[in-house]
Amino acid sequence: MNIDSLPTPCVLIDVDRMKANIGRAQAYADQHGFSLRPHIKTHKIPAFARLQVEAGAKGITCQKLGEAEVMADAGLDDILISYNLIGFDKLARMTTLARRIKLTVAADSLHTVEGYNRAAEAADVSFDVLIECDTGGGRCGVQTPEEAVTLAQALRGGARFAGLMTYPAAGKTAEMAAWLSAALAAFKATDVPVRVVSAGGTPDLWKAHTIPGVTEYRPGTYVYMDRSQVAVGAASMDDCALSVLATVVSKPRPDRAVIDAGTKTLTSDLLGMEGFGHIPACPHATLSGLSEEHGVLRAESGLPEIGERVRIIPNHACVVSNMFDTVYLVSGERVLDAMPVAARGRVS
Amino acid sequence: MNIDSLPTPCVLIDVDRMKANIGRAQAYADQHGFSLRPHIKTHKIPAFARLQVEAGAKGITCQKLGEAEVMADAGLDDILISYNLIGFDKLARMTTLARRIKLTVAADSLHTVEGYNRAAEAADVSFDVLIECDTGGGRCGVQTPEEAVTLAQALRGGARFAGLMTYPAAGKTAEMAAWLSAALAAFKATDVPVRVVSAGGTPDLWKAHTIPGVTEYRPGTYVYMDRSQVAVGAASMDDCALSVLATVVSKPRPDRAVIDAGTKTLTSDLLGMEGFGHIPACPHATLSGLSEEHGVLRAESGLPEIGERVRIIPNHACVVSNMFDTVYLVSGERVLDAMPVAARGRVS
Repeated sequence: MNIDSLPTPCVLIDVDRMKANIGRAQAYADQHGFSLRPHIKTHKIPAFARLQVEAGAKGITCQKLGEAEVMADAGLDDILISYNLIGFDKLARMTTLARRIKLTVAADSLHTVEGYNRAAEAADVSFDVLIECDTGGGRCGVQTPEEAVTLAQALRGGARFAGLMTYPAAGKTAEMAAWLSAALAAFKATDVPVRVVSAGGTPDLWKAHTIPGVTEYRPGTYVYMDRSQVAVGAASMDDCALSVLATVVSKPRPDRAVIDAGTKTLTSDLLGMEGFGHIPACPHATLSGLSEEHGVLRAESGLPEIGERVRIIPNHACVVSNMFDTVYLVSGERVLDAMPVAARGRVS
Repeated sequence: MNIDSLPTPCVLIDVDRMKANIGRAQAYADQHGFSLRPHIKTHKIPAFARLQVEAGAKGITCQKLGEAEVMADAGLDDILISYNLIGFDKLARMTTLARRIKLTVAADSLHTVEGYNRAAEAADVSFDVLIECDTGGGRCGVQTPEEAVTLAQALRGGARFAGLMTYPAAGKTAEMAAWLSAALAAFKATDVPVRVVSAGGTPDLWKAHTIPGVTEYRPGTYVYMDRSQVAVGAASMDDCALSVLATVVSKPRPDRAVIDAGTKTLTSDLLGMEGFGHIPACPHATLSGLSEEHGVLRAESGLPEIGERVRIIPNHACVVSNMFDTVYLVSGERVLDAMPVAARGRVS
């Protein structure tokens, strides 16, 4: 079956490109002696997580308990949930999961640490905890190395301190390096061993070997790559494994063609770029306007005709695959399989 | 059960506010003698479509065949798909649907019209067709009244011309009025009767009675309302029926709190506004930064603590409900029911 037979809009995953992306990152990590722990937020598909582990990844990373539960059900047995888990229900689900797999979770506050301590004791289970550090990203994370030491020392019993975790802002590798060096020195001074130093982010994936003490890296987007990664030099357009197939449904004027992919397909993510995607077969066109189910292509001439199909490399692959219950695996233009996005919608 | 027991992030639908929104719009339409044909893109829930019809709506509007199929399965029997349906598969599904319900579809090109003509003849079914007009929105739609007449005259057999449809740009009601007046005059001159004049859009809902010849209006967002509708004066914050419930998971500094709702909950839709939502209980906070599963609240002081929950009125309700497989019906803080978003994911 050819992609021309698929209903549009739909998401295509080029498995050859995806496998090459997985292999390239794994080879890089192997060369530099750190582990990969890919973030499944990008694909949310257990079969793809298995491909990553079979290629050599140490385990996987999830952002949500619900995602981790789906992955554990599919046999993935070494999972980091890189998120503060807060509240009785989530802690109960966490300890249930910790009985089934090797689980690691994250904390950046005494509130979170005390929850983990109580949960480990109440359920009589053990799991690893990484202290999340704000090394310049300005999101979660302790603000100083001293706070990291304090939280590490506050962990008790089955809630075991394992190391440090950061999600650095793209391009701030120097700031992150200084922060982590100071933190490792602070831990050394207190004789608390740091087994894991975990960083992430595909934009700076290829600089991961320069991170002080790095033991594992959590790239997500690298599995598919996208227009934003091409923009920052982390990939080429030919590495992009996820594309959206859309049909031209209207061409009101020669300089305007409307496709059946809008924000409910491509999302509104701009990530600092102009336009909502790149169309390799029509690179001069700008995808400038999106409403929920329409995308407007503009060019002075040369736009596709009504009924023609276009493949779009979206700005941000992770949020696009999250819009669809199913993606299509392709090799070139040949459709190999339809794959459920099993962990989509596991929002909590 | 109270909303405090729900896992976060989740979507709450205040049914009292929703019913008031439905009633208010229906009363306005009744007063001015035009029909409502609500667009279900906002809720994607058959039970809510039934509420709209029971309140007096003539039928419903869908953007996708898949949505219409779900609604037809649930007993909704008068559906407009306000979209050019292109390609063999979609036309085959369209004629199947036309056998089951009173179906209306849209066209803005000879390509689409000829597809409808062939499909009606091949399947021996009939359905209504509205000619979509670009009255200033700059998306789909014929560019001149003369083109509208030409397409109306090109419809044959079971593909019956019924009237005109527009989705005007918000705030361009005068431009739309001039366009439609000219079109109605052109049709009058050719003796082709125009039974339906269909417009839409919640921002200008309360001006619908001023549209020349309007017979029906297709508001979508009005059922929930949202921050963008408040911004343009179409609603008040107290009308907003959809909110996102989120938990503070981190507070790295007194001026920064991080919640478990990011772009995979709220989306990146800004719709011209600053920030990604309004928090009634913490109105001085800005929801300024979103990543996929984190939202960053900023204020000099007075931010909620870790473990506390916040309710967020999002910028754009339609895209938020599309992220969730289930929403929770509430009355105040009481949870009444969990409701599947049955037509979510019906992307084609």
